[in-house]
Amino acid sequence: MLSKAQIKYIQSLQHKKNRQKSSQYIAEGDKIVQELLQAGMPVKAIYATHDWLEQHTPLPGSLPADAVVEVDASVLKQLSSLTTPNRAMALLDMPSGADQLPAAGTVALALEAIQDPGNMGTLIRIADWFGIPQIICSPDCVDVYNPKTIQATMGSIARVRIAEHDIKELLQQTKLPSYAATLHGKNIAGFPMMKEGIILIGNEGRGLTEEVIALATHRITIPRIGGAESLNAAVAAGIICGRLLI
Amino acid sequence: MLSKAQIKYIQSLQHKKNRQKSSQYIAEGDKIVQELLQAGMPVKAIYATHDWLEQHTPLPGSLPADAVVEVDASVLKQLSSLTTPNRAMALLDMPSGADQLPAAGTVALALEAIQDPGNMGTLIRIADWFGIPQIICSPDCVDVYNPKTIQATMGSIARVRIAEHDIKELLQQTKLPSYAATLHGKNIAGFPMMKEGIILIGNEGRGLTEEVIALATHRITIPRIGGAESLNAAVAAGIICGRLLI
Repeated sequence: MLSKAQIKYIQSLQHKKNRQKSSQYIAEGDKIVQELLQAGMPVKAIYATHDWLEQHTPLPGSLPADAVVEVDASVLKQLSSLTTPNRAMALLDMPSGADQLPAAGTVALALEAIQDPGNMGTLIRIADWFGIPQIICSPDCVDVYNPKTIQATMGSIARVRIAEHDIKELLQQTKLPSYAATLHGKNIAGFPMMKEGIILIGNEGRGLTEEVIALATHRITIPRIGGAESLNAAVAAGIICGRLLI
Repeated sequence: MLSKAQIKYIQSLQHKKNRQKSSQYIAEGDKIVQELLQAGMPVKAIYATHDWLEQHTPLPGSLPADAVVEVDASVLKQLSSLTTPNRAMALLDMPSGADQLPAAGTVALALEAIQDPGNMGTLIRIADWFGIPQIICSPDCVDVYNPKTIQATMGSIARVRIAEHDIKELLQQTKLPSYAATLHGKNIAGFPMMKEGIILIGNEGRGLTEEVIALATHRITIPRIGGAESLNAAVAAGIICGRLLI
């Protein structure tokens, strides 16, 4: 049973300012909860239906018994900010100390002002697919702990470190080469596979800022053959990873 | 002014069966309406706010004066199925006779059971970016004239022909090579640029059916380096186009 205060607290985590105050967030969805447990993420509590618990017990990891709370589907619905129904939900601590700069020999994705929670989740999933261990988000990106983002990651949030950092500063501080996705760069097909560096992806509508483009080592472009004005930011990131990382 | 019957008719086009009965559909959004007019699409009427019309008159194309209807924002909201507010909407005839097979020397995208309207729109936008003139959808794909799909195409619906066709039959009838996206094919990075052929993308959860995979000339895979179980279907299509078409 959840108390009224607990329900209110969980609901409060739908808002960024409350997540930041408490350093906790919610992950919703049958599968993602399992993935987070399996990956050893700092899960503090599970709220799930009788059915889900029956199907998934014993749970991976070492949760104390009182951290697993059976709730009715109606209560889960009350807790959820998503329109699709879920049978399980997890309460997690945000990871701390993840904001070091990308290390030599590694690839990172740096995102400037990504606004759509679904795009952000898809970008995290792309990073996870291509084995990119770290994403750096500019402070004006949508919060990665937004419930919609967490769901769109399909569990990849468990495997990719997320740091918040000014992207201009990042480029001034790093010694790694950087690749800025723009509409007026060099054809991506002409680049060799990258061994290390930072792939820069900008806002859905405006792209990267001029300052960031100017600081980047390379300006890269996916050549346009047809008539579309632009590509979705996550699709563009996927295409770039598909050219530079495999 | 719109009559009650007109409002009811436009609202009815939110449902696939009514769109199919009338062979008409609705495109919502300030920019997409302009793009459709510019591309010479069969626009039958425009419903837009005073502001929008003032900004965009004269409209491209040769719409009769009585086909341009000024409406209040409140009426547009009533007509719309989208949550984001719009200032303009177009009523269009569906194109006919677009279901011939892909011609020799061209590239087509064939989609099997794509379910998400946003993914479908993004796939149409990707095809448009890479100059793919035709998409073939299996009959169990989400309707491309779904308002959410139309909006996600960002105007690309004006430049890509869409046909509905059984994908197995398509592969049995065509002489073009085909490339099936699967998790157990050959590394996409090893393929040369394709000059003609059909790129096959399957359902978001299940991928392509075994029958379609068996009929394809090539089985292709985006190699996974990290831990994600899968990629979003539209992202995968983008990555494949980014390897085979540029």
